[in-house]
Amino acid sequence: MSNDQALESKIRIVLVETSHPGNIGAAARAMKNMGLSRLYLVAPEDFPNEKAVFRAASAADVLDQVVVCPTLQEAIGGCSLVLGTSARQRKIPWPLVTPKIAAERVVAHRLDPADIAVVFGRESKGLKNEELQQCHFHVNIPTSEAYSSLNLAMAVQVLAYEIFCANTESETAIVWDQPAATSDALEHFFAHLEDTLESVGFHDPDNPRQLMTRLRRLFLRINPDKMELSILRGFLRTVNEAIRK
Amino acid sequence: MSNDQALESKIRIVLVETSHPGNIGAAARAMKNMGLSRLYLVAPEDFPNEKAVFRAASAADVLDQVVVCPTLQEAIGGCSLVLGTSARQRKIPWPLVTPKIAAERVVAHRLDPADIAVVFGRESKGLKNEELQQCHFHVNIPTSEAYSSLNLAMAVQVLAYEIFCANTESETAIVWDQPAATSDALEHFFAHLEDTLESVGFHDPDNPRQLMTRLRRLFLRINPDKMELSILRGFLRTVNEAIRK
Repeated sequence: MSNDQALESKIRIVLVETSHPGNIGAAARAMKNMGLSRLYLVAPEDFPNEKAVFRAASAADVLDQVVVCPTLQEAIGGCSLVLGTSARQRKIPWPLVTPKIAAERVVAHRLDPADIAVVFGRESKGLKNEELQQCHFHVNIPTSEAYSSLNLAMAVQVLAYEIFCANTESETAIVWDQPAATSDALEHFFAHLEDTLESVGFHDPDNPRQLMTRLRRLFLRINPDKMELSILRGFLRTVNEAIRK
Repeated sequence: MSNDQALESKIRIVLVETSHPGNIGAAARAMKNMGLSRLYLVAPEDFPNEKAVFRAASAADVLDQVVVCPTLQEAIGGCSLVLGTSARQRKIPWPLVTPKIAAERVVAHRLDPADIAVVFGRESKGLKNEELQQCHFHVNIPTSEAYSSLNLAMAVQVLAYEIFCANTESETAIVWDQPAATSDALEHFFAHLEDTLESVGFHDPDNPRQLMTRLRRLFLRINPDKMELSILRGFLRTVNEAIRK
């Protein structure tokens, strides 16, 4: 049970550019109902607002502790597992799972020391491609074809509920010898990788042809640990030194 | 797939004495997102109301088709499976399942010709004991102990989502030679049973000692078919005739 406590305190619910403060309050209530407390808001349109407090009901403490960030990258800083909710499949398909599978992965990740983020997009149009490409994998809540657009707070409720159920039921966790790499470290790696690919003439920034997108997807899917990432970066450094000679 | 269609059109979402029209609209949206369309309202405090229309978003058609009933008994009339949502265990424990198990039972019931009802109580205090005792079994949405009171529409979302998932995934259904007895038929049976118990001197209405509650629970749990119910009623008739001689 001490592990379960630890998991809940490591989960960040991240809402990106939310329009309606009522949805923020309803999301806070849904979170507290399911034992979550860490709400991150990326550039909310209208917060704080008393509508959020009203809809939060007895979860005003979650609102009091909200972390407001200017960018998604900041909101997921330090996280070693980032899930993005997505209504539809994109041009370049990303690993896409159901809420149940997503919840199982979150629970399986619970022994890793870093935080876990579940990211929700705008009410009107979800997450942008560049935001989705900062996620290790995507979650899609199954819906009727006749009306597939869930209310934002409802989506938070479904994911928080599935994580609560999985955390209550599951006894399994991934045992690993190294902590997983954080999002920040991965972004440094991606920048280093892109520079290197350009230096060796493999990557033309004026004609990118989805190269970096595909590489992001590859390395995010692997969810590398810190040791692996430092090996990869050591390799890139060696390549760069070799070119300069 | 034709069976799945049939199941969705047989499910009634029943909201009892809802206070806030916004919750009715949000429930309608959650239903339509999950392929459900039949909303029943038992004595709503404030409906129709434009707040319901606003929160329903693109599910205004669900609100247009709402059935308003004066009593729960009317709202579940003709149903052969009735689930009641309940936040807590009662004095006399009823069969209580998780949303996942409830959804599996709903789907397993899909070949029965009668409707299925999922009943939700008041925002403030849920369903009353006499309402819960009209249900075959109870569903409890697992929550954090720190804050267990889900918003009404959120509870509708979780149940509708689980039913949608179970219906999409499941290929199993209970195959039975007789249709299940409806709630109305069961109520007539319970009245007949209580009369008979009183006639024979087994039941003292002035000192009921939970007798009828326990018998309701027993027969609801069995979920008898029509043939079985007519056998039971034939037996009661015979007893009554024998006493009068």
